[in-house]
Amino acid sequence: MRILVIGATGTIGAAVADELATRHDVIRASRRGPVRVDMTDPASLDALLAEVGEVDAVVVAAASGGLSPLDTPADADYWSGVEGKLLGQVNLVRRALAHVRDGGSITLTSGRFAEPVPGSSLGYLVNAGLEAFVHSAAIELPRGLRLNAVSPGWVRETLVALGMDPADGTPAVDVARTYVDVVEGDAQGRTFAVEAR
Amino acid sequence: MRILVIGATGTIGAAVADELATRHDVIRASRRGPVRVDMTDPASLDALLAEVGEVDAVVVAAASGGLSPLDTPADADYWSGVEGKLLGQVNLVRRALAHVRDGGSITLTSGRFAEPVPGSSLGYLVNAGLEAFVHSAAIELPRGLRLNAVSPGWVRETLVALGMDPADGTPAVDVARTYVDVVEGDAQGRTFAVEAR
Repeated sequence: MRILVIGATGTIGAAVADELATRHDVIRASRRGPVRVDMTDPASLDALLAEVGEVDAVVVAAASGGLSPLDTPADADYWSGVEGKLLGQVNLVRRALAHVRDGGSITLTSGRFAEPVPGSSLGYLVNAGLEAFVHSAAIELPRGLRLNAVSPGWVRETLVALGMDPADGTPAVDVARTYVDVVEGDAQGRTFAVEAR
Repeated sequence: MRILVIGATGTIGAAVADELATRHDVIRASRRGPVRVDMTDPASLDALLAEVGEVDAVVVAAASGGLSPLDTPADADYWSGVEGKLLGQVNLVRRALAHVRDGGSITLTSGRFAEPVPGSSLGYLVNAGLEAFVHSAAIELPRGLRLNAVSPGWVRETLVALGMDPADGTPAVDVARTYVDVVEGDAQGRTFAVEAR
């Protein structure tokens, strides 16, 4: 398959791209290249898809936002995490409808918290909104296209980088396995939660 | 209590305001007045709260959006339903933190579909995102403030207006009862689904 991976320089995205590249033709895109894209900018999504052309699958594993306290003074700061992860991924799906070949797939990245913590409300909104979108939009997809999401949870490499206990996370290569299974399988409209192992 | 009802000229909002007014001081706001507000405009929310001053409770029952097909050509058209119902209600909560008295409440309006239908994906995103926000933001509220949502389902009067079977809907006065119970009760961080009766 010809597969576009967005966020391919990130911890998860790189692992997904590497695993897919063992048996597929992978195009690696991210904010820093090699193919450049800014998920928060619809014009950048248009340019990316025009440049890349037809593909059999799109995987989005772009980085997620941080905490966003409810009393953040400026609306723009409070909402900044919504731009790429929620609006950007939905905007990507809308555009990919015309670029993914018959029977192809689009796989997005959701996320989750163990429980609400101060500043997590926007993250909850984004993840729940995205998963509900994936579930309900599936029936509108043309030509047998599939739409799913992966909720990766904590990645071991990220925990190590943050100085936290790596035992609470899943190695990126195992997280990547879930994405690859979704791309190569036949799931439709579902969110797959990677369980810590 | 002194209670601000936004969307007070709508089918649900009017019923909520009427019921609350039997024993509280109700300020009625909507796009058409008497106190004017545009939920899609943050500056309008600021002006509303500055004009109204301190209140014990805020209820938002502003109208929801319609269907939004996934292949709607323009992003602005696809996303139009998100402005007031999702971004607007969250922006209202952020501002109301400084205007609702100790122990007061904010009650928002969610919604639901019986099942996904073409064009419902944005509505699913909005409702799920809003309910997850309400659940998770509750722990960040200062001074004993409460935050909840009501998911009204079909309202009988709306079905009649649309020429549909009224038996599938709940009379607005009964829907309003759920809002009033939430305002006068002690629920926190929950969404209350009105069941058709």
